[in-house]
Amino acid sequence: MLTNLPRLQAMMAREKLDAVIATCAENVTYLSGFWAMSQWVRRGPQAYVLHPRDEAPCIVANSGILDLVPDQDLWVKEIRRYGYFEMNVDETATLDAADAMQRDLFAGPAAKGPVEALVAAIQEKGLSRGRFGLDEMGITPQCMEQLQALLPDATFVRAFALFEHVRSVKTADEIAILRKAARITEGAIDAALAVAAEGITEREMLRAFNAHLVTNDAAPVVGCIGFGTRSAMINVQPSDRALKRGDLIRFDVGGRYKHYRSDMSRGAVLGEPDPKVARYYAAVEKGVLRAYDVIKPGVKVSDLFDEVVETVRREGIPHFNRSHVGHGIGVDGYDPPNIAASTTSVFEEDMVACIETPYYELGFAGIQVEDMVRVTRDGAESLMTLDTALRRL
Amino acid sequence: MLTNLPRLQAMMAREKLDAVIATCAENVTYLSGFWAMSQWVRRGPQAYVLHPRDEAPCIVANSGILDLVPDQDLWVKEIRRYGYFEMNVDETATLDAADAMQRDLFAGPAAKGPVEALVAAIQEKGLSRGRFGLDEMGITPQCMEQLQALLPDATFVRAFALFEHVRSVKTADEIAILRKAARITEGAIDAALAVAAEGITEREMLRAFNAHLVTNDAAPVVGCIGFGTRSAMINVQPSDRALKRGDLIRFDVGGRYKHYRSDMSRGAVLGEPDPKVARYYAAVEKGVLRAYDVIKPGVKVSDLFDEVVETVRREGIPHFNRSHVGHGIGVDGYDPPNIAASTTSVFEEDMVACIETPYYELGFAGIQVEDMVRVTRDGAESLMTLDTALRRL
Repeated sequence: MLTNLPRLQAMMAREKLDAVIATCAENVTYLSGFWAMSQWVRRGPQAYVLHPRDEAPCIVANSGILDLVPDQDLWVKEIRRYGYFEMNVDETATLDAADAMQRDLFAGPAAKGPVEALVAAIQEKGLSRGRFGLDEMGITPQCMEQLQALLPDATFVRAFALFEHVRSVKTADEIAILRKAARITEGAIDAALAVAAEGITEREMLRAFNAHLVTNDAAPVVGCIGFGTRSAMINVQPSDRALKRGDLIRFDVGGRYKHYRSDMSRGAVLGEPDPKVARYYAAVEKGVLRAYDVIKPGVKVSDLFDEVVETVRREGIPHFNRSHVGHGIGVDGYDPPNIAASTTSVFEEDMVACIETPYYELGFAGIQVEDMVRVTRDGAESLMTLDTALRRL
Repeated sequence: MLTNLPRLQAMMAREKLDAVIATCAENVTYLSGFWAMSQWVRRGPQAYVLHPRDEAPCIVANSGILDLVPDQDLWVKEIRRYGYFEMNVDETATLDAADAMQRDLFAGPAAKGPVEALVAAIQEKGLSRGRFGLDEMGITPQCMEQLQALLPDATFVRAFALFEHVRSVKTADEIAILRKAARITEGAIDAALAVAAEGITEREMLRAFNAHLVTNDAAPVVGCIGFGTRSAMINVQPSDRALKRGDLIRFDVGGRYKHYRSDMSRGAVLGEPDPKVARYYAAVEKGVLRAYDVIKPGVKVSDLFDEVVETVRREGIPHFNRSHVGHGIGVDGYDPPNIAASTTSVFEEDMVACIETPYYELGFAGIQVEDMVRVTRDGAESLMTLDTALRRL
């Protein structure tokens, strides 16, 4: 299961919520296992998960995505559909279990729209006067107004941050997926570097990177690959710049595997690195490695920030500054904690964070190491297998 | 340019708007050419385009994505940044034009947050008491409240539908991109069918499909590929189901190329098709082909709907029913018009629409043809090169 149920229940109790309602694509998947395709690939389609504190949860979905229900591993079993979709059934055929479930879902009633379906669920669960933590990031303003109008005695408080807080400590299933996502992405870096040669372009290297992702069932999301001075561009989008001997290659890359994200960074040089590149790379690398010594449950996130920044400064970049040196990762690209000076939280077991110490200098290079790291019971475990060192090609 | 400026200006005049404000990823790109990466790949990051009726437009962007400005083909030249990002400059280096522009952008002032930056732009353009069409789909509720509080004399009306209306008639640049997106996706279908053989799985076929996309600089978005009875699943996600002789293969697929979407459908059979499959396929194919005879500027969208549905019924599926037989396509997967019985608009020159007549029957098959079509001055032009016929493998 993706949902950290104990943490969700604790947050509902603490915030005195009768239920939470997921509305954005990531939270719907997180709370139910349901990948509601239309809301992932277009702007506007609505799908929700209503998760009461004391009642069974339910999914609200358009009739046009009901086929995904029997084909996915959902732990939320109650489905409430809305909207018209024409589905036929071959009455002469013996349906398999998935098709039979689809037929039954289509045979059930359909609400007019997503809000009507959600309101009916809330009313039937006796929560019309309830207090709801509602993820405000996926519901349209029009639907939000309609919801408030149809449930005048209910209270809605914004809960996107609550969802992020719950998501920040991963379940075993999430960690297994993130580990696999990291492994596939590392393989894509290897595949990209396997085509490195004088004259190859950033774009050609990205193609090799992405081809590895998709042939391993992951989707491209972030493919920042820059050569030479272009590596200093924060989000460098691969261009026709050709690789030259001595160029630094910076990867800041990630994909999506089983709905979960990867995000990592490494550097390589075709030939021998410029001495300043080598020195700075070693400094940012030591910053990331220092995190493994510091991270454990109970350690203040802001203390890790200080420690990592100090390490990079001491090890070779005295003027190193950053707004953050990492962030959690999960079903979205940035989960808590944001590893920054102003963050007040502490690390908890089974948080998964990206630790990164990028240094960008226009006219010179961008130098970055980024690892995916799990917080263990008494320390930190890398989800990586790639060496952190600057790779010589 | 992606923006249909005459249509935008006409809509601003008709709705008596002093400016429009794009807030969601698609509309920001559409209005400026700026692909504001963070809002495409994460939930929450804010980027805006303020486009006044009588003043120069401007982009509001986080400092962390300023590198994308000189590297993209933006026609909006004024950039207002917000937030802290540490960027260094090699003072010994001679910067190229892109790096020099980045340096200058970083040297300029940064607002505290996105709303402060937007408000400053509005105030400096003398629009504090203006009437704004604001795309409500990308701004967070918190930012919307802040915006209203900081500009108490301004009026904000929801404008996502206005943006969709403007987007529905494509510019020449958009059509060129959509044409290329269609061509790449057709190539991916060919690549997928090239690996078709007894025993290959849906998942393996998807890998071949996606590999073609990414090696042609497109990103996977919708990859519905189903074999046999699984083809009846509306959004079939490729599984380990192996291909058998006589299986129908249904593709409903699309990607993203230069931020624009493709969406198309074809069918193929390994060996000889079941007679019912062949008959039904011919019927849905004729429905799509009928659209080419009917579509021209001024034709009612609802009349096309009726004509296409009637054709499929007459040609072999008497009980054929659909909520729509197509939709516009552009920077988002569904642009207007929605080709449905209730749609009141007419076709206009340079609309680009997907025409589709899918038929789903559980226990039997899903049968679908979908073409990408441009409305010309006096008719319709296909953006496709693939034959519409059921392919025999």
